[in-house]
Amino acid sequence: MKLAERIAHLGTETAFAVSAEAAAFGATGNKVYPFHLGDMNIPTPANVMEAAVKAMKDGKTGYCPNAGIPRLREVLAAEVSASRGVRYTMENVVIQPGGKPTIGKFLLTLLNPGDEVLYPSPGYPIYESQIEFLGGIPKPYRYLEGERTFTIDLDALRRQITPATRLLVLNDLQNPTGAECSSEEREALADIVLKHDLYVLCDEAYFDIRYDGHSTSFVSLPGMAERCVILYTFSKKFAMTGWRLGASIGPKPIVDVIAKLNVNDESCSNHFIQYGAIEGLTGDPSGPRRILSILKERRDLCVELLNAIPGIHCLRPNATFYLFPNVTRAMQAKGFDDYEAFRRALLHETGVSVCSRLHFGRPLAGETQFYIRLAYSGIDLPEIREGLTRFRQFVEG
Amino acid sequence: MKLAERIAHLGTETAFAVSAEAAAFGATGNKVYPFHLGDMNIPTPANVMEAAVKAMKDGKTGYCPNAGIPRLREVLAAEVSASRGVRYTMENVVIQPGGKPTIGKFLLTLLNPGDEVLYPSPGYPIYESQIEFLGGIPKPYRYLEGERTFTIDLDALRRQITPATRLLVLNDLQNPTGAECSSEEREALADIVLKHDLYVLCDEAYFDIRYDGHSTSFVSLPGMAERCVILYTFSKKFAMTGWRLGASIGPKPIVDVIAKLNVNDESCSNHFIQYGAIEGLTGDPSGPRRILSILKERRDLCVELLNAIPGIHCLRPNATFYLFPNVTRAMQAKGFDDYEAFRRALLHETGVSVCSRLHFGRPLAGETQFYIRLAYSGIDLPEIREGLTRFRQFVEG
Repeated sequence: MKLAERIAHLGTETAFAVSAEAAAFGATGNKVYPFHLGDMNIPTPANVMEAAVKAMKDGKTGYCPNAGIPRLREVLAAEVSASRGVRYTMENVVIQPGGKPTIGKFLLTLLNPGDEVLYPSPGYPIYESQIEFLGGIPKPYRYLEGERTFTIDLDALRRQITPATRLLVLNDLQNPTGAECSSEEREALADIVLKHDLYVLCDEAYFDIRYDGHSTSFVSLPGMAERCVILYTFSKKFAMTGWRLGASIGPKPIVDVIAKLNVNDESCSNHFIQYGAIEGLTGDPSGPRRILSILKERRDLCVELLNAIPGIHCLRPNATFYLFPNVTRAMQAKGFDDYEAFRRALLHETGVSVCSRLHFGRPLAGETQFYIRLAYSGIDLPEIREGLTRFRQFVEG
Repeated sequence: MKLAERIAHLGTETAFAVSAEAAAFGATGNKVYPFHLGDMNIPTPANVMEAAVKAMKDGKTGYCPNAGIPRLREVLAAEVSASRGVRYTMENVVIQPGGKPTIGKFLLTLLNPGDEVLYPSPGYPIYESQIEFLGGIPKPYRYLEGERTFTIDLDALRRQITPATRLLVLNDLQNPTGAECSSEEREALADIVLKHDLYVLCDEAYFDIRYDGHSTSFVSLPGMAERCVILYTFSKKFAMTGWRLGASIGPKPIVDVIAKLNVNDESCSNHFIQYGAIEGLTGDPSGPRRILSILKERRDLCVELLNAIPGIHCLRPNATFYLFPNVTRAMQAKGFDDYEAFRRALLHETGVSVCSRLHFGRPLAGETQFYIRLAYSGIDLPEIREGLTRFRQFVEG
């Protein structure tokens, strides 16, 4: 059997292999502390569930429009307009079965083979996979570890730009670093976008997962709304990861093409769950608030316990549910110079399952520091305490 | 804004434009008889809904494996093994958000640009759209109207084959004609597949929508299971069109690639609705039986009333919920030689909304007969009677 040639360029999320290893370790009777995957062990708010069930029982079980039901597109346009300070209507919104589909559909709509795409590395690995699958040239930009946050290495990013550069992927607030752009970073990026006539995928999956203050969208900068497609998802804010519901939000000519891709790909997203999303956006807001309060407690405990481990330094991000501690000295102290050997030893000696920098795009030349990524969205406080205590004993032992 | 060049080759389902026209006509106070779209106005069986709701409330709201939950893959493998007479395991099954995604994922996995693909025309329009979008060369094969059914023009199909022919799309039982292959047709196609080393997309969306006897799958012929990917859907059998749940079933090397495409595209299908599908496959079978019995009554009434219209000849398919009557003489009698003019006049003078041959791929050279397509899945008996009576008055008037 000969597969199509393009399949050789298809990447994946290698974090799923970590899940499989953790599951195999757990299946032999070992306790696993699951810090590896960004899933959530928090229930979807009850009002969202009830609205979806009501719609199902009311017969919203047939097809809906390819772009999503009009009422959801309207209320989402209103919510995103208010939170981003930009004027969108339902014509700017096309519903998707999750946040992720926007990545491929954005690239299908705007990328020609040979076009160069700037994207974060470390970053969500599907950017790199889809850029290469569709014949684009990957141009990763790195993050620098600062005093209080990670920052984009803008000078290095500028050096990556050529006449073939056409697209930018910006994930603000960022997975895996938890970084949030400063207003200076946003302004510098907007200048670059205008100067080089770029279009932008704004992956805002974590826009609402923040613990203090308010998020600022890149689309709010002058001239950006016309050039940006927002990846929106209901997954995190409403603890709906397994429901698969999100949206692409941007200029109508792009959104219209994405809706035509919907016709070709999955017809439409599940009909009745869209009523749950409407309730989420317009009903009792206590569910999302409770989710944030649970996550904040976990973040605080994780950061405290990680920084108590010798040779580990962990920043305290104000957003996302990820931590990206620098473990260079801890690895050295234990005699490891290989990410996977360290990760596997940690799993097998303590049950603590984490991802590393390796799971977020190919490492770049010249990386000298070692980082792991912990997600605290799927693990409760007692297990966080127990797991990270075992982690400390492992490093100290 | 410059869109990617590939977008110029992206087709669509033009039937959605018919829906929009019908909706616009209805919005001005007119009664519409919706024969145009293959949606269903029959409730999903209650046991399927209850199982999905229970799973949602039990917290099946996080991600599930990219290929689907193991139990659903197991029971679906068992059901398809039994009904197709082939031995599949869960390793041969990858769950999808609907039947349709299998079309694009099959082609992405096996089609190189320049490869030729045999596919039915008239046929489901997304075949043609996706073949051309992915750089394949469309090689349509036609159906001939016989005494009791439509049949594939095998001689013409054979003449389309060249050394570049690589894939075959077979939609048995077929939309829009309702045709079912004879065993002779299946055997001739299997010979062609082996002789020319083809791989096959078996679109079996309507495998279980039949009124007498049992369906026979093309995969049951010797050597075919190794070369076929079945498009399976829960949409029709369980009246779950808007739930968006289906599967790709075939050789493990292909299914593994399709699962990797899932990782890149939508991560996974909605988690809790997969429990509804398990209940559908393993629980009380009275729901699907009731759906078939409703559809059969509608078919009988539609065929009777269509054949009572002067200049219309309608075969009585044993499967699908579509009819593809020959309306050549009726159009002539009314002075129409243009499909769209006829369809619009019918809509605006009677409220009867139908698709025509034009909505099922580009017409082929030499077509002399005119056909329309009626779906009876979304319209009740009284409206069928009223609408088709008005249709007769329109033709007679």
